[in-house]
Amino acid sequence: MSFLDRIHACTAFNPDRYLPFQIDDAVVGFVTPELAARLAAFADVFVVNAGSVNLATALITPAARTAAVDRVLRALSQQGVVNGWRDELYPVAAHPSAPPLLLIERAAVPLFGTYGSGIHVNGFVGRGADMRMWVGRRSLDKPTAPGKLDQIVAGGKSADHTIWETLLKESEEEASISPEIAALARPVGAISYCTERSKGLRRDVLYTFDIELPEDFVPSNSDGEISEFYLWPISRVMETVRNTDDFKFNCALVVIDFLIRHGFVNHSEPDYLDVVKGLHGF
Amino acid sequence: MSFLDRIHACTAFNPDRYLPFQIDDAVVGFVTPELAARLAAFADVFVVNAGSVNLATALITPAARTAAVDRVLRALSQQGVVNGWRDELYPVAAHPSAPPLLLIERAAVPLFGTYGSGIHVNGFVGRGADMRMWVGRRSLDKPTAPGKLDQIVAGGKSADHTIWETLLKESEEEASISPEIAALARPVGAISYCTERSKGLRRDVLYTFDIELPEDFVPSNSDGEISEFYLWPISRVMETVRNTDDFKFNCALVVIDFLIRHGFVNHSEPDYLDVVKGLHGF
Repeated sequence: MSFLDRIHACTAFNPDRYLPFQIDDAVVGFVTPELAARLAAFADVFVVNAGSVNLATALITPAARTAAVDRVLRALSQQGVVNGWRDELYPVAAHPSAPPLLLIERAAVPLFGTYGSGIHVNGFVGRGADMRMWVGRRSLDKPTAPGKLDQIVAGGKSADHTIWETLLKESEEEASISPEIAALARPVGAISYCTERSKGLRRDVLYTFDIELPEDFVPSNSDGEISEFYLWPISRVMETVRNTDDFKFNCALVVIDFLIRHGFVNHSEPDYLDVVKGLHGF
Repeated sequence: MSFLDRIHACTAFNPDRYLPFQIDDAVVGFVTPELAARLAAFADVFVVNAGSVNLATALITPAARTAAVDRVLRALSQQGVVNGWRDELYPVAAHPSAPPLLLIERAAVPLFGTYGSGIHVNGFVGRGADMRMWVGRRSLDKPTAPGKLDQIVAGGKSADHTIWETLLKESEEEASISPEIAALARPVGAISYCTERSKGLRRDVLYTFDIELPEDFVPSNSDGEISEFYLWPISRVMETVRNTDDFKFNCALVVIDFLIRHGFVNHSEPDYLDVVKGLHGF
């Protein structure tokens, strides 16, 4: 097992197995042929060709598209195709930073292979060899990656929150980090990947933050998403990421990026260059 | 002008304009048709086809290949095709981390489009809004990018030095940084790019380091490569990289990476995701 194995867990995507999902010729996602066959039944919303799935061109405005697609998604939810409805809208566009062409329910994002984004926060205390990192264990009733290890704070960014609002909201909910302490968070970059998971495609950009926490700060979870927090020596974090897949697939990449930026994983590591590049794979 | 302009200055490479340079079917570089025509005259060393330039298969060992290619390079130097002979050997391989298949004179690296690598050090004092960065101005007699701005320390890595040895050597030569102070340097990642420059292709990996220098440290150049050092507020460094091309093309990328990792350039920046990804372009 190696850091590169963690990268490879986030690169399982073969576009030949999908049909591009397009709005006005812009590719905004990827759907399976099975989903395309179901979408063909909603011909006023989705135009399904041999080589692509297109949003009906009569749907001109983002609001009209959002309403029409929502109707289809609710039907697919009835059919058991969309599961775990969240009542959170995610933007859909050809680039994760572009203005949204429509908004769709979060639970449908992996099915349509549209971009997702989120914030992930590395919470640590101490420096150098004395550094320790706060690690959360995801609750066993989480729909995604139950029981896996996670950052102290991480969460998806919906269409109605900015990156910074998402950071503040998740810091409070997941770890009882006050806005005053959350303000210590420093943006440090972004990682990206596209990978097949059981629920569909994860085609994500994660905005990453470091926060050096006070020594006496102890996180506590208030939304039931994290069952336990651990304060681990950085060496234990490093060995866990290198030698196991205990961290959730994308959280492992956030940890590796942290270890690289802080010099704990460096050019003496086999595959170093491929790991560095692999953090920005998509 | 924008940070993305600095990225684009490092992405000017169209492989259709080059022939792959191969050793036993592994692509190790890219040469122009003009150079290929010259290499055809050395048929015992280079086998030139319509679609590729191959090293003669009779040259089996790295030592034999190195000696044979050196003979050709010296002839090309006589012809004025290879300029600025450095007497430094660089490794040639299909991946920048792979064991070298042969070694070639540094001055020939851009002509053959083989990988180059180097170390670049961000030297700074202070933290947060008070941070200042040491910036060097390259001497006007440098063969590459004379008069451009540079990191406090940067240098190419030849085949006979490790990354860390290169860091120590260049720190001493370029900025009179003692081994004791150089030991404070922290590896923070690597950037990569492939771009056409006047002397040929630059297809490089730069191993990046941060060094927080003592407030009373003042660099001084001892090898004639830097004409002046400036200690600039980080805001000035940022504006200079954003609004001018005063920094040497690849040094600009190293600065941008620093600004991202330290939170000075963040998600509020237009093109943020493209800039982050563009630092790992090759």
